[in-house]
Amino acid sequence: MAVISRPPPRVRIAESALSNGCQFTRLADFHHWLADVAERTRMDVEQVPLEAMAGWARDPATGNIGHHSGRFFTVEGIDIRYPAHPVTQWTQPIINQGEVGILGILVKEFDGVPHCLMQAKNEPGNVNGLQLSPTVQATRSNYTRVHQGRPVPYLDYFRDAFEDPSTRVLADVRQSEQGAWFYRKRNRNMVVEVFGDVELIDGYCWLTLGQLHELLTVPDLVNMDARTVLSCLPFSGPEVTGTLNAGMGGAFREALVRSCDPDEQGVHDSMEILSWITEIRTRTDVFTEQIPLGALRRWHWADGRISHDTGGFFDVVGVSVEAAGREVGSWAQPMIRPVGMGVIAFLVKRIGGVLHVLTHTRAEPGYADVVELAPTVQCTPETYDLLPPEARPRYLDEVLNADPSRIRFESVLSEEGGRFFHARNRYMVVETDLEAEDPEFRWLTVHQLEDLLRHSYYVNVQARSLSACLLSLVGTAGVTATAGTELLATR
Amino acid sequence: MAVISRPPPRVRIAESALSNGCQFTRLADFHHWLADVAERTRMDVEQVPLEAMAGWARDPATGNIGHHSGRFFTVEGIDIRYPAHPVTQWTQPIINQGEVGILGILVKEFDGVPHCLMQAKNEPGNVNGLQLSPTVQATRSNYTRVHQGRPVPYLDYFRDAFEDPSTRVLADVRQSEQGAWFYRKRNRNMVVEVFGDVELIDGYCWLTLGQLHELLTVPDLVNMDARTVLSCLPFSGPEVTGTLNAGMGGAFREALVRSCDPDEQGVHDSMEILSWITEIRTRTDVFTEQIPLGALRRWHWADGRISHDTGGFFDVVGVSVEAAGREVGSWAQPMIRPVGMGVIAFLVKRIGGVLHVLTHTRAEPGYADVVELAPTVQCTPETYDLLPPEARPRYLDEVLNADPSRIRFESVLSEEGGRFFHARNRYMVVETDLEAEDPEFRWLTVHQLEDLLRHSYYVNVQARSLSACLLSLVGTAGVTATAGTELLATR
Repeated sequence: MAVISRPPPRVRIAESALSNGCQFTRLADFHHWLADVAERTRMDVEQVPLEAMAGWARDPATGNIGHHSGRFFTVEGIDIRYPAHPVTQWTQPIINQGEVGILGILVKEFDGVPHCLMQAKNEPGNVNGLQLSPTVQATRSNYTRVHQGRPVPYLDYFRDAFEDPSTRVLADVRQSEQGAWFYRKRNRNMVVEVFGDVELIDGYCWLTLGQLHELLTVPDLVNMDARTVLSCLPFSGPEVTGTLNAGMGGAFREALVRSCDPDEQGVHDSMEILSWITEIRTRTDVFTEQIPLGALRRWHWADGRISHDTGGFFDVVGVSVEAAGREVGSWAQPMIRPVGMGVIAFLVKRIGGVLHVLTHTRAEPGYADVVELAPTVQCTPETYDLLPPEARPRYLDEVLNADPSRIRFESVLSEEGGRFFHARNRYMVVETDLEAEDPEFRWLTVHQLEDLLRHSYYVNVQARSLSACLLSLVGTAGVTATAGTELLATR
Repeated sequence: MAVISRPPPRVRIAESALSNGCQFTRLADFHHWLADVAERTRMDVEQVPLEAMAGWARDPATGNIGHHSGRFFTVEGIDIRYPAHPVTQWTQPIINQGEVGILGILVKEFDGVPHCLMQAKNEPGNVNGLQLSPTVQATRSNYTRVHQGRPVPYLDYFRDAFEDPSTRVLADVRQSEQGAWFYRKRNRNMVVEVFGDVELIDGYCWLTLGQLHELLTVPDLVNMDARTVLSCLPFSGPEVTGTLNAGMGGAFREALVRSCDPDEQGVHDSMEILSWITEIRTRTDVFTEQIPLGALRRWHWADGRISHDTGGFFDVVGVSVEAAGREVGSWAQPMIRPVGMGVIAFLVKRIGGVLHVLTHTRAEPGYADVVELAPTVQCTPETYDLLPPEARPRYLDEVLNADPSRIRFESVLSEEGGRFFHARNRYMVVETDLEAEDPEFRWLTVHQLEDLLRHSYYVNVQARSLSACLLSLVGTAGVTATAGTELLATR
């Protein structure tokens, strides 16, 4: 069913060797480039007590942590009542960042091959310094210069895309971010194609979609913002022209390609999926109340940070940052530092030759409308040592105990390094033959996910990240990928 | 572009005489039936001071008005900062009704003709007693029996539609309601087709879509809840088979029919429309803060009601109700009583033979995501006597001064009588040749509106009501309607 009459432009991935005209004909050249940028970039990050962050203070009445300018974000409290949850009520710190930023990737064809303009960007929470970020990754405070720093490069392509005839908008949608850590945060995810010349600034490079897909398997390289924007770009499957591998890898890839095809039927139709989401949103009671940070229960402020009494979940910590090659030279800020590494996994299954993804309607306190579609599993396993056994997430053991031959994708990737300190998750795609479908889980095709991604607040940030990872398998067919199936993205 | 692979079921309107098998072969019979129900129904509504409402009290700390059970809704305050608006900051009372209700219409074929099961329902805010409401119009307090009243008839068709093989969901989407009077209110709009026998309860009747369309021209008859549910039902145009009128009416109707067709192009494509909404949502700053009702500025509580110091906008009043034939026999409640009658109008235009509707991205404090698409004009004209002249709504004068021959639809209809007291608007569809398109206005086809209506929070309740009115013209071709073009709805 058409959202609007005319189909949007789609980027088609076709199989081929990389042609000339790319910024890097071999990924080894990219890694050399990145190492070179890293040598010329510096960011010293030091953990400091929350009380010692320059420019930030505790509100005497509420205990909320805010910047003296009143901008950026605040750390506040939230009281959650969730009667159907194993833990029916709790309080926690949460980041309130009302301003909407732009996450934008600029796309341009070189010799008929679309390339994405990516930035090698340092963030204080990054475990490894530079990661690949979108062309523009700017909060409104950035781009209205509250930082009093330099202008944001390439921003005008996104701010003016709306009226500019030399660009074309390929994706433009507001999406939520971590609803467990952000109160109603949303960012504008944009992909803009540009037809004219684009000046290449130091620290930026052009990569094909195929190259970006390959780089998703490198730990902590393609950052969260890049992944979510990539997931919002409409794809169609490659032309499958007799080049599929034999055996499992080829059949898996064929099922994935068919899953991207709008003409393939899923086990549920459009109306069933929308009605399912509406039903779960309506019957799930999650009551949230913003409360002062000083009014939290079972959290304590000690040693310059805020921690849960059990030591679990996450801490709120302060950092002091000295940077070269970024908007401003030095600043301090609070960050969320999670305890433990998370697991974010899709169970996938071939049904009638079409790959289906098991999605979960997950409630998080910061969501705009109760639940969003999440990966099959999204949790930090060690958290469940602190919770009653019935809280153990459905399908977690299927993922953790999966036979290695069933693991189609696995990579440790970082969450947003501007707000989260060393927040890392193990992203996995695991093939299964599981029959069961819970009321809160449904099998969707990739194309169905993609259609929902044109609209706000259907697919959560973890599922968007993981969708980008899943799509990367169109080229490599997972563990049985054949060398030489590098991708060429063409329109 | 497909939202999900398979197209949803659509209800097709074809032109024909009404066949037998309908509940009423002539609308005169319906009116007799309604008069008969009215004679057997009674609702005495008396305005009482807010202080004198049984079961309701003012919170001593905040001044908020709430029910002793903690359920139903509360009247609270809101502080709005809207820098780009002619009035940049104000406070006002607002209804906070967190619970999500069901508005559902049951559809069943009789002799191949789909009929809608409608209820003749009294609401305390109705200007005229009975209005036609959906099969089910129930808040969660209703259906979980906080009223301690009788069960809600037909509710199970909607609560179980999800799993029940003898029904089929035709529409199921959460939609906002008046964002100027409700804080983040949302209701679940459902249309469910039933294949088995349905017991007919006194006070309910079966009407075809064609009959409902005709009844939209009767003042204050089809209530707001019925209109919003009807707007969410996917339509396709009628088979146009040589029966079109000559002249303006026929050409208008043909353009409207083409506007409903997914294969017709609009002046903007899907991506442009979605990007436009994203852009306006991102660049519009509306900051809302929930405040105690007691902290309002420029409002006063006197003579048992809350009013603005100018006497404009609306009052919060109390009513005491005695009813027969409803869930419970007597209750009291606060209501919003607007000052003056509003105008809700679409300017429509034939562009390339396809009717386009001029929609407006309107911000209201209670919206979930900043703006929703509103009618071209949505205001109470006399309010603007109280505001600076630059606040006068765009296109209001084009509507008010339209040549009568350009008025394709006009009917005074009521807003939700369960919360609003005598809230009436003049709904209009006016044809224009206007060239201009503002940044905040866009020409959309009916089909494009319909596609957005499958998703939450794109189209506001006034535009949904008016869309239902506009669609009714498929049969009657507006002012030049020919007698005898009564509609028969078939699938």
